[in-house]
Amino acid sequence: MRRRTALILGFCLAAGPVVAEPKSVGTPDPKLPDPKLIEDLVAANHVLYDLGVVDGFGHISVRHDKDPTHYLMSRSMAPALVEAGDILEYDLDSNAIDAKGQALFLERFIHGEIYKARPDVIAIVHSHSPAVIPFGVSEVKLQPIFHMSAFMGIDVPVFEIRDVAGSASDLLVRNAGIGAALAEVLGDRNFALMRGHGAVTVGSSIPQVVFRAYYAEQNARLQAEAMKLGPVTYLSAEETAAAARTTDGLVMRPWELWKRKAMKANGER
Amino acid sequence: MRRRTALILGFCLAAGPVVAEPKSVGTPDPKLPDPKLIEDLVAANHVLYDLGVVDGFGHISVRHDKDPTHYLMSRSMAPALVEAGDILEYDLDSNAIDAKGQALFLERFIHGEIYKARPDVIAIVHSHSPAVIPFGVSEVKLQPIFHMSAFMGIDVPVFEIRDVAGSASDLLVRNAGIGAALAEVLGDRNFALMRGHGAVTVGSSIPQVVFRAYYAEQNARLQAEAMKLGPVTYLSAEETAAAARTTDGLVMRPWELWKRKAMKANGER
Amino acid sequence: MRRRTALILGFCLAAGPVVAEPKSVGTPDPKLPDPKLIEDLVAANHVLYDLGVVDGFGHISVRHDKDPTHYLMSRSMAPALVEAGDILEYDLDSNAIDAKGQALFLERFIHGEIYKARPDVIAIVHSHSPAVIPFGVSEVKLQPIFHMSAFMGIDVPVFEIRDVAGSASDLLVRNAGIGAALAEVLGDRNFALMRGHGAVTVGSSIPQVVFRAYYAEQNARLQAEAMKLGPVTYLSAEETAAAARTTDGLVMRPWELWKRKAMKANGER
Amino acid sequence: MRRRTALILGFCLAAGPVVAEPKSVGTPDPKLPDPKLIEDLVAANHVLYDLGVVDGFGHISVRHDKDPTHYLMSRSMAPALVEAGDILEYDLDSNAIDAKGQALFLERFIHGEIYKARPDVIAIVHSHSPAVIPFGVSEVKLQPIFHMSAFMGIDVPVFEIRDVAGSASDLLVRNAGIGAALAEVLGDRNFALMRGHGAVTVGSSIPQVVFRAYYAEQNARLQAEAMKLGPVTYLSAEETAAAARTTDGLVMRPWELWKRKAMKANGER
Repeated sequence: MRRRTALILGFCLAAGPVVAEPKSVGTPDPKLPDPKLIEDLVAANHVLYDLGVVDGFGHISVRHDKDPTHYLMSRSMAPALVEAGDILEYDLDSNAIDAKGQALFLERFIHGEIYKARPDVIAIVHSHSPAVIPFGVSEVKLQPIFHMSAFMGIDVPVFEIRDVAGSASDLLVRNAGIGAALAEVLGDRNFALMRGHGAVTVGSSIPQVVFRAYYAEQNARLQAEAMKLGPVTYLSAEETAAAARTTDGLVMRPWELWKRKAMKANGER
Repeated sequence: MRRRTALILGFCLAAGPVVAEPKSVGTPDPKLPDPKLIEDLVAANHVLYDLGVVDGFGHISVRHDKDPTHYLMSRSMAPALVEAGDILEYDLDSNAIDAKGQALFLERFIHGEIYKARPDVIAIVHSHSPAVIPFGVSEVKLQPIFHMSAFMGIDVPVFEIRDVAGSASDLLVRNAGIGAALAEVLGDRNFALMRGHGAVTVGSSIPQVVFRAYYAEQNARLQAEAMKLGPVTYLSAEETAAAARTTDGLVMRPWELWKRKAMKANGER
Repeated sequence: MRRRTALILGFCLAAGPVVAEPKSVGTPDPKLPDPKLIEDLVAANHVLYDLGVVDGFGHISVRHDKDPTHYLMSRSMAPALVEAGDILEYDLDSNAIDAKGQALFLERFIHGEIYKARPDVIAIVHSHSPAVIPFGVSEVKLQPIFHMSAFMGIDVPVFEIRDVAGSASDLLVRNAGIGAALAEVLGDRNFALMRGHGAVTVGSSIPQVVFRAYYAEQNARLQAEAMKLGPVTYLSAEETAAAARTTDGLVMRPWELWKRKAMKANGER
Repeated sequence: MRRRTALILGFCLAAGPVVAEPKSVGTPDPKLPDPKLIEDLVAANHVLYDLGVVDGFGHISVRHDKDPTHYLMSRSMAPALVEAGDILEYDLDSNAIDAKGQALFLERFIHGEIYKARPDVIAIVHSHSPAVIPFGVSEVKLQPIFHMSAFMGIDVPVFEIRDVAGSASDLLVRNAGIGAALAEVLGDRNFALMRGHGAVTVGSSIPQVVFRAYYAEQNARLQAEAMKLGPVTYLSAEETAAAARTTDGLVMRPWELWKRKAMKANGER
């Protein structure tokens, strides 16, 4: 706990120079993100690794709670190693406000461009979680097989990077143009597959986006298994809508578990 | 160990107000559940998580040992975090006797309605364990592939919520009517699939219901694999009946292992 | 380490009464098993659990090093909980020499009858390891897909209990007659599938039989995956024979790893 | 940390006799490998085990940084147990410079012969990682399904040992002739399957070869799943080339994670 607090303070102090005028001691800087948000962002990096949604690659961001034209995300590194001092602030063109001399994710444009296009989005996960990859390279449609993944909707899009970056890209969303194209394919949905690459998940909070990234992966695994058995009864459009509303209200239940386990493991690191 | 005792005492004290007249010290309250039952219920919550039967969702209940018209189950929370103080008492209409200001599981009616319909049932698990989901959405029948899952019988039912809640439900068993319909589909069996949702398992004790929920999941995984190889020889009806009788006598063997591991891990939390 | 020694001494002392005349201190009893053998048998119980070959069920035995008409195996319990004091001695009719009031495995006849039929066999594992179950209920033949599982040979038999116990058995090898029938199906091979139940593995040492039980499971998993891709090139009969000879000389390499990890975890229990 | 340093010193002292003339204290021997290289080689042994690329079998080598005609690899043992004192030095005919009385890997010729044929190769992994085995025994071609495995190229070769060792081999690369044949099949690629056996991965550094061995395994698993869904869109030749260039620049990101976890676990052993 002591170490966690230190890390969060570390972020706040490190982030200090971003603010033009230093505030007097005791007055929380109105431009600094809520320390609780940083704590959750750090925890979410570890949770996504613990859940197998990310491995050494993948990233999660959150929109700045004091400035909707900025977002927060770690420097370029493995999510499972992220601490508060690794969190940087970016504008919506995905420039780091202060990179602190650190390398940035080549694909940070995924985040900036979606935040631009979707004012309702507060948190974004990009991952290569294993079960969703096959659906991104197949003609089979990913569909909600149970209530937990209703958030995906019945019309999950697939982003084909060849449409925007040509036939010889390295598959990475390495500039704003590709990011904007991805945001357009995502539209008003919560989840999109990326052919030959992975997926992107959006939500209105860190717990919700982690929940969604996890259950998208579960749905892909379960749907693949179900299809091997024969014809599958998916959730209907009406069921999908109703279940999405219900499960959106339940995201704190697993989040409390996941965060507690990640924090405990973090204390042991 | 010390912490565990404290938690159990915590439950007993917390549960105290449920009883009208306080008893004098030293006389065990005849209406309080056996502390051993609470200990097993808490352990079972953790065991089900350790075995992958539940994740952040799912629940287990046990009929009150002093009052068959009541049952015990945690408040609404992730099973892996349940402690004795989280256990609440419910009547068979699934009203909490004293909710202690806590949120309750939306689907507690699964438990109350089955306890009503099945006097022989002492413990119930509801889960979304991954391997059973595909069988709930497929036309393929779940069948005992080895002796350990003979308890399922050769005629595993599938509960289709559309039959009772219409075509636009959120899939949840969120009232007594749906719960009663599920209990009717379950009939006198030990296990039922729930389409687009999960499964329900019943038993005559906590160790038995945990054993059954675990081996239902194993059977689903093994059957799916076997079917991919080609035609499968399932247990015959006679073998199923004989093996179910035998394995019912063996449930304490894995339970001792599972509980010891869960208790040890709990002590480390 | 200290605890382990105590456990082994515990066995020796507990086993004392089996011997007619107590020996003077300092003279190792010529009829007591080598403490190193007990240590390996205990370790093997834990290793098989760690490797996923056994869960709460399954058992491993070893022929008594001082008396080939006796064998050693734990009382009826989950393998992962076995300590030296739980090891009992059995004759080849699977009577415990001194049951110490403990329950015995219903299926101990698997061990006694194979030891009778196969003087070359020193150690036996019976398990329900998950990947082999589908091959036991399918018409597809389990075959060596890589050198590590060459010990299985190219003609893995399947024991159909209906042939000996009729159409209404509980699938268990619960008497000497069924055990003898299983031994006959096994013949001079190292591995046999048991329909609707599991498998039996034999070897000339504890490390070897653990190696074989583990790689039989791996082979089943890999073969199932390979068959889904299309036609498979299996090891030829000649390759199988050559590779079996080679890998038999390599069993100590993984055993050292597995035993060390099990012993370390045991020290932490 | 202290233990790790001791182990590295242990290697340096043990390796001392290899050098003809002892150097005075304080002057690093120009022929001794960089202790950092040994540290990474030891870590890589543990990382490959943690990642499931190796089990009790498999090996990793690195070309000697001071002498390109020598390479470094452990004695014959399970990778997860390797410490610095277990690392031996070999010439390119795979003779140990000083075997220290230890058994050597029968298949060390894989390493020597590839180092001979490929001056650009600095590190080599040989493994039986589970998902690649089915592709080695099938007519289906392993192909890059996502950017992470672009290093494999679109033309992954399969080494058929029957072509060089005849129809009755034990599948092992047990001499220089078979090793040279494997190196020829590998050609200028980074990855080759070995029928009925496993695979070999090469790279220009330890972090890169570990990255490649891990993502070859992931690709095999994901491709097998994708093929079950139906037709698959693989990376094109151009995308493969571009993505391989990009991901080669990203290997340190997971390596930092993997090494830190392995080192921490090692400190706990």
